[in-house]
Amino acid sequence: MWHQRQIRLREQRRGFHLVTREIAEALPELGQLRVGLAHLHLLHTSASLTLNENASPDVRRDFESWFDRAVPEDASYWTHTAEGPDDMPAHIKASLLGPSLTLPVRNGRFGLGTWQGVYLCEHRDRGGARSLLVTLWGEA
Amino acid sequence: MWHQRQIRLREQRRGFHLVTREIAEALPELGQLRVGLAHLHLLHTSASLTLNENASPDVRRDFESWFDRAVPEDASYWTHTAEGPDDMPAHIKASLLGPSLTLPVRNGRFGLGTWQGVYLCEHRDRGGARSLLVTLWGEA
Amino acid sequence: MWHQRQIRLREQRRGFHLVTREIAEALPELGQLRVGLAHLHLLHTSASLTLNENASPDVRRDFESWFDRAVPEDASYWTHTAEGPDDMPAHIKASLLGPSLTLPVRNGRFGLGTWQGVYLCEHRDRGGARSLLVTLWGEA
Repeated sequence: MWHQRQIRLREQRRGFHLVTREIAEALPELGQLRVGLAHLHLLHTSASLTLNENASPDVRRDFESWFDRAVPEDASYWTHTAEGPDDMPAHIKASLLGPSLTLPVRNGRFGLGTWQGVYLCEHRDRGGARSLLVTLWGEA
Repeated sequence: MWHQRQIRLREQRRGFHLVTREIAEALPELGQLRVGLAHLHLLHTSASLTLNENASPDVRRDFESWFDRAVPEDASYWTHTAEGPDDMPAHIKASLLGPSLTLPVRNGRFGLGTWQGVYLCEHRDRGGARSLLVTLWGEA
Repeated sequence: MWHQRQIRLREQRRGFHLVTREIAEALPELGQLRVGLAHLHLLHTSASLTLNENASPDVRRDFESWFDRAVPEDASYWTHTAEGPDDMPAHIKASLLGPSLTLPVRNGRFGLGTWQGVYLCEHRDRGGARSLLVTLWGEA
């Protein structure tokens, strides 16, 4: 059983955002899978997906603090600067975290740990609404 | 052919640990797959999985040295500090390396390079035993 | 429908290289898949794969600048130094970016965003030709 569906996520400001429920609600086919996988793939190069702690907004804020220091906007070595100071750091952050996640599915739901949630990591100041190509496959 | 199985890894001290054999031995179904994939998914947000060099313990020690410097415990910008100084760095490290790996399977074994081994990356001082949700699928 | 094929990529100098077309052309079976996935897995521990901007060579050069500063060759804490100063940083970079990518497939092609391309990230000074184990599966 295969399903492939492109979904459009709500526009978010720069930062780390919990989107597990938004994605699950856009996937009516998820409930039909007894065992399988879900591949979530962002069609962009300046935003990323990761799994992390789903309870404290503090954690998501600290993600932003760390990433902004690790990949500084004002580094003298950037040469790709035509699209603004947030662009090249956004590309690096996007690859450090990656554009896609593969999640286990069991009994019609994402098979995540108690504290795991999907983060949309928006690395641009104005990234706009991001598109996700989701592929679901498995057994009913 | 689908198999999904939750396994419990041996508790490890903080650091990087080679667990390829421990995982393979917990998956009796692996031997039945002629071609397929194995998705290994940690159900946690402060530990991660990666593939790297399977021979020298030096490499695993140097991983710890680099990650401890790249994500310092005493940074002034952490706000999520209630669970101890090792907690927030553990979340960042967990996302940099990621909670899951998809491994090719061929002829009943993981299809890895000669020098590739699976590392359990334990980022907490006392992380306890970690649980892995493994999904195997492919052709017999 | 399953296909598994090992391909040998052209040797590249140290740096970040766009290889989307080289990989697609080595996969004649790709055109048969209406919906599916492609798992690209490097059989090495000192090179990696990532998806990022496929237009500007500037972006790929800036990737190299950032990674070379983030993981310095001359750090005093490296203990695994027998294989040269570029070796241990290559292992760290390889895990930060990861050895594999899972790409959606639709209508016989990789289902990527307009600006997404596959980078081969060669972290060694002389890495040689790299081997990729590709697994394709899906529906015709």
